[in-house]
Amino acid sequence: MVVVMKLNSSPEQIARVNGRLHACGFQTQMIKGVKRIVIGAVGDRQSIDITHVENMPGVEKVLRVMKPYKLVSREFKEENTVVRVGPMEVGGSGLVVIAGPCAVESKEQLLAAARAVRRAGATVLRGGAYKPRTSPYSFQGLEEEGLRLLAEAAAETGLACVTEVIDEESLKLASEYVDMVQIGARNMQNFRLLQLAGRAGKPVLLKRGLSATVEEWLMAAEYIVTSGNENVILCERGIRTFENSTRNTLDLSAVALAKTLTHLPIIVDPSHATGKRELVGPMSRAAVAAGADGLIIEVHPDPSAALCDGQQSLDPGEFEALMSELRPMAAAVGRKLDEGRE
Amino acid sequence: MVVVMKLNSSPEQIARVNGRLHACGFQTQMIKGVKRIVIGAVGDRQSIDITHVENMPGVEKVLRVMKPYKLVSREFKEENTVVRVGPMEVGGSGLVVIAGPCAVESKEQLLAAARAVRRAGATVLRGGAYKPRTSPYSFQGLEEEGLRLLAEAAAETGLACVTEVIDEESLKLASEYVDMVQIGARNMQNFRLLQLAGRAGKPVLLKRGLSATVEEWLMAAEYIVTSGNENVILCERGIRTFENSTRNTLDLSAVALAKTLTHLPIIVDPSHATGKRELVGPMSRAAVAAGADGLIIEVHPDPSAALCDGQQSLDPGEFEALMSELRPMAAAVGRKLDEGRE
Amino acid sequence: MVVVMKLNSSPEQIARVNGRLHACGFQTQMIKGVKRIVIGAVGDRQSIDITHVENMPGVEKVLRVMKPYKLVSREFKEENTVVRVGPMEVGGSGLVVIAGPCAVESKEQLLAAARAVRRAGATVLRGGAYKPRTSPYSFQGLEEEGLRLLAEAAAETGLACVTEVIDEESLKLASEYVDMVQIGARNMQNFRLLQLAGRAGKPVLLKRGLSATVEEWLMAAEYIVTSGNENVILCERGIRTFENSTRNTLDLSAVALAKTLTHLPIIVDPSHATGKRELVGPMSRAAVAAGADGLIIEVHPDPSAALCDGQQSLDPGEFEALMSELRPMAAAVGRKLDEGRE
Amino acid sequence: MVVVMKLNSSPEQIARVNGRLHACGFQTQMIKGVKRIVIGAVGDRQSIDITHVENMPGVEKVLRVMKPYKLVSREFKEENTVVRVGPMEVGGSGLVVIAGPCAVESKEQLLAAARAVRRAGATVLRGGAYKPRTSPYSFQGLEEEGLRLLAEAAAETGLACVTEVIDEESLKLASEYVDMVQIGARNMQNFRLLQLAGRAGKPVLLKRGLSATVEEWLMAAEYIVTSGNENVILCERGIRTFENSTRNTLDLSAVALAKTLTHLPIIVDPSHATGKRELVGPMSRAAVAAGADGLIIEVHPDPSAALCDGQQSLDPGEFEALMSELRPMAAAVGRKLDEGRE
Repeated sequence: MVVVMKLNSSPEQIARVNGRLHACGFQTQMIKGVKRIVIGAVGDRQSIDITHVENMPGVEKVLRVMKPYKLVSREFKEENTVVRVGPMEVGGSGLVVIAGPCAVESKEQLLAAARAVRRAGATVLRGGAYKPRTSPYSFQGLEEEGLRLLAEAAAETGLACVTEVIDEESLKLASEYVDMVQIGARNMQNFRLLQLAGRAGKPVLLKRGLSATVEEWLMAAEYIVTSGNENVILCERGIRTFENSTRNTLDLSAVALAKTLTHLPIIVDPSHATGKRELVGPMSRAAVAAGADGLIIEVHPDPSAALCDGQQSLDPGEFEALMSELRPMAAAVGRKLDEGRE
Repeated sequence: MVVVMKLNSSPEQIARVNGRLHACGFQTQMIKGVKRIVIGAVGDRQSIDITHVENMPGVEKVLRVMKPYKLVSREFKEENTVVRVGPMEVGGSGLVVIAGPCAVESKEQLLAAARAVRRAGATVLRGGAYKPRTSPYSFQGLEEEGLRLLAEAAAETGLACVTEVIDEESLKLASEYVDMVQIGARNMQNFRLLQLAGRAGKPVLLKRGLSATVEEWLMAAEYIVTSGNENVILCERGIRTFENSTRNTLDLSAVALAKTLTHLPIIVDPSHATGKRELVGPMSRAAVAAGADGLIIEVHPDPSAALCDGQQSLDPGEFEALMSELRPMAAAVGRKLDEGRE
Repeated sequence: MVVVMKLNSSPEQIARVNGRLHACGFQTQMIKGVKRIVIGAVGDRQSIDITHVENMPGVEKVLRVMKPYKLVSREFKEENTVVRVGPMEVGGSGLVVIAGPCAVESKEQLLAAARAVRRAGATVLRGGAYKPRTSPYSFQGLEEEGLRLLAEAAAETGLACVTEVIDEESLKLASEYVDMVQIGARNMQNFRLLQLAGRAGKPVLLKRGLSATVEEWLMAAEYIVTSGNENVILCERGIRTFENSTRNTLDLSAVALAKTLTHLPIIVDPSHATGKRELVGPMSRAAVAAGADGLIIEVHPDPSAALCDGQQSLDPGEFEALMSELRPMAAAVGRKLDEGRE
Repeated sequence: MVVVMKLNSSPEQIARVNGRLHACGFQTQMIKGVKRIVIGAVGDRQSIDITHVENMPGVEKVLRVMKPYKLVSREFKEENTVVRVGPMEVGGSGLVVIAGPCAVESKEQLLAAARAVRRAGATVLRGGAYKPRTSPYSFQGLEEEGLRLLAEAAAETGLACVTEVIDEESLKLASEYVDMVQIGARNMQNFRLLQLAGRAGKPVLLKRGLSATVEEWLMAAEYIVTSGNENVILCERGIRTFENSTRNTLDLSAVALAKTLTHLPIIVDPSHATGKRELVGPMSRAAVAAGADGLIIEVHPDPSAALCDGQQSLDPGEFEALMSELRPMAAAVGRKLDEGRE
């Protein structure tokens, strides 16, 4: 860490900062500039709260040299982590496609969706049983009944399955029914839920928060991993910006960047990111081109009847067409769609 | 609601949209433009999910005429809601100042803070016992021990008190110890927690999310109110923008605007908004000038020793000076600091 | 246009709004809701300034039905516009790659860059002679000498060339030397410069502003086209968001979306968007996958000696490797790199 | 400056970085951490382009210690700069109010506005003769005729006057008619215009760009000052964020912060910031409370007939009421409205 002292900091202030750093086990070195003093400090950053130094009298700012995340970093583990989701592997050379409806609405709807996505080559079924909705007046999900339908549809079609959890109870229930639990964007910094998910024993799909930096996203993953669960898959789903012609702004640079910073697999959700059916195809292709390890895509047997997010859902024909476009795209980056068939 | 059809929408598509609107109890009117059809629909918007219409074939977009929130709106209730927090009233003609440390660290620290803020004129003590921290390696709070210390310090100094809750358990415990529970920015769309807080019987201080629109903020309050609790105080604490010279960007226009949209009281947190001790004074004054009903300010007996957020905490002397500045400011907008003394 | 009247608007206010709309040649239709009146107005929106209506007493808001841009829209012209830049065509089935250094520094530097990018398959040379720099103390470009060097290097290598213009004088000079002029992100709403560029007779590469919406970007293009120049190429170069781990946030959804809204060609600048050399490859591939018509990439013979933007410039070897990756990517979307050789 | 080397940087790379820093006149000091090397460099940052170092092999990042602006900084000049605008002084103990219509529309309109704002206590008249409009189809201003009307109305009412300039020609003309020229938000990084304004001899009102950081804003001022003109007044007018319920987000923390960083006066434009008439009052009061040196407010004799921005313009009665509110507000911060009368 590098401590920049104020222009007019006194020798006593400098000595006090230096003393505190030593007391915390840091070795320090003074850099006397023309106008001010800068203190370089070497040691284990975990042993000190950086704000303790920042608010000492005479300190202008503290520059961090080290990254705040540890276990999820490539510096800690260089090779890619491969997460098993049911029989599938995410983060290896294959590309996984997760697909299904925004919400589980009924047995018929879900089974139709599951069959359609299976036929087209997806290997994991998505479907929401607990829906975090902006309005208390919107459909909030079928809850446990939805989990049961999801597990049945997955079993019947030979797909793995994933669903969102929103609190301790839904996490506990979902863990009995599905192969992977999802923590949604609005809960990315629900640290208690992250810790509970870290202890629940299922792989976790961690969506990036609407306004989370890449660093905060990785810190959220660090919460899960430090709670004992290394099976975390990151999911970029668009960030909130001034641009309102798309629902969110899909941040593919963050995917390419995060792949250099962490060993965890990263997938992309082009449906929530764009909010527009006609952009799901181009953004799915772009995600694969940018280096994503997979996609999660909303597919509904009849989007115009969907109880949520219909305007961004593909129908079975559109999804099949998308999968056909993705195969050459995967090949162009030296990978292969993992379609789960022998 | 106004449905704009695509340029080339067919008569059948138009008829189908019209039919669905009628089926949901809407009265419709066709507006035939030079180039396209627009359908005006009159009825109860709760009876339809707007996305059902948006994703019907031939529809370009749906424009909303009505606001999505009901119970928290000024249209529903014109006069200001006054929320009682212990013996204090928030949202009336007085201005309430909530103050105290970011985190409860020890009995001594908290009591020193409580006495200092009481002496200067604050009436509610703040102090975190459950701290949502970006890093799993940072201090996470004293939990129930912190709640106990908070209640004791409040009792000893004659202050009311408020603390943040982060899940069902902390909500339940906190409700036994404090006069008001706070839902933090990162949990503003933790809808389950909102619902639980709505049933817990204590007033709720609801912070605006880092990237929540005013509408989403009011919808979060609607969750609490529809769960049975009308005693909600909104708190603006800065939003996330591209500007990084302050911790967040304090959005005082949102305060002035929200006062016109809702009957709920609104207070401002200049400490988290700016992240800089030297900006707390100017932004506190500005908040009062903009029409806020109160302030929540971080005060620590020794900011340079604080376990969190020290760089934005005032020391007792600075806080006393701030209170002196606020009295004429309150008078300039025709209000009065409520200092809880007879 | 749809005019939403306030809840308590008076019959007189409604009549006045209706009257003004009629006076401007609109046909109107009243939609009487349960709670309020909405007026649908049909006519030529150019004949009225929408704010005149918005600020009439009793009006709550005005909802726009039509898009504000005309000549650049797909509704105006359905087929893709193909812009000729020297011997090259942009916007057809081929993909054009523009490459070269951020700034023209010397004859040797530029010629080395030109030869390298030509060898690897680029067809247009970029090089800045007028550099808009955040700091007045930074290198500001070689000005006319830079233009001369650019034209010579292009001629010697058989490349077309493009350079940024920043005012009337540089526009006039550049038009004598180069095949296309560029208007940078910071000048996207320098409307005078847009108009002058519209009259200068050269194709215009129009970069999206740092915080311009897609609509504003298209409106800026409309300024150029209405000034008499249809040869406009749009360039997405990243927008400003809260995320600071990349220089900007590359908004590829905007590219895919804009392709549906306008007939103009769109290219992508992954160098400025990311600010990081190691992300230029993934984002170039992603841009092609998302449907971009070309790329503009910073290449420097020795990035570590570059006078600006070295950290985002590729060296010749890296650029050649990138071009090799782009060929299969282009094929995967049914296109072909246009490498300008017979 | 502090250079952080990569984890695996080689001794040769470290030596080369060190050598280049020495060659540029820096003194360096090695800080050997547990895992990596950090180089502290002391010297004149102007003598090196920081990106030269950033892109040397083995360098992870460069942390800046010094601020990039010089002449506008409080470190360079501690006492407040007072700028004379006609007979008025901005930046002293008085508060200046600039008011008038968005655009000069006619002699009658302008004179009515001038008389109204003079009567209420404003001392500087604003009025646009060159209007940068998002749409080429919107009213673009009366140009020189507008300047003439502005000068006449100012003379007749005893007000100073200010108008926006958009290019060399309008700058030259405006300098003959008005007391101060304004550079608008969209031209804040039109560096050529900044330099020309620096040489034109008139005080410059420099609006903050829509997405400009405080640092970029100060750098833009530095362009003007280094071109020979110290009479710069900064103007905060709202930044672009995700929040769309106000036109922009007024960033008053930036005002309070910038007052600590620069000696230049800072005023606030609540009209453009909020875009809503009913928020102009609260935000004007808040700006004064936050420490602004003045306000610029849109006033129109008949807002509902305004050719632009009517929805954010006050009518004469509303403006007079606002001025009445500002007097006690100014007193509460120990200042006084400067109303230009003896």
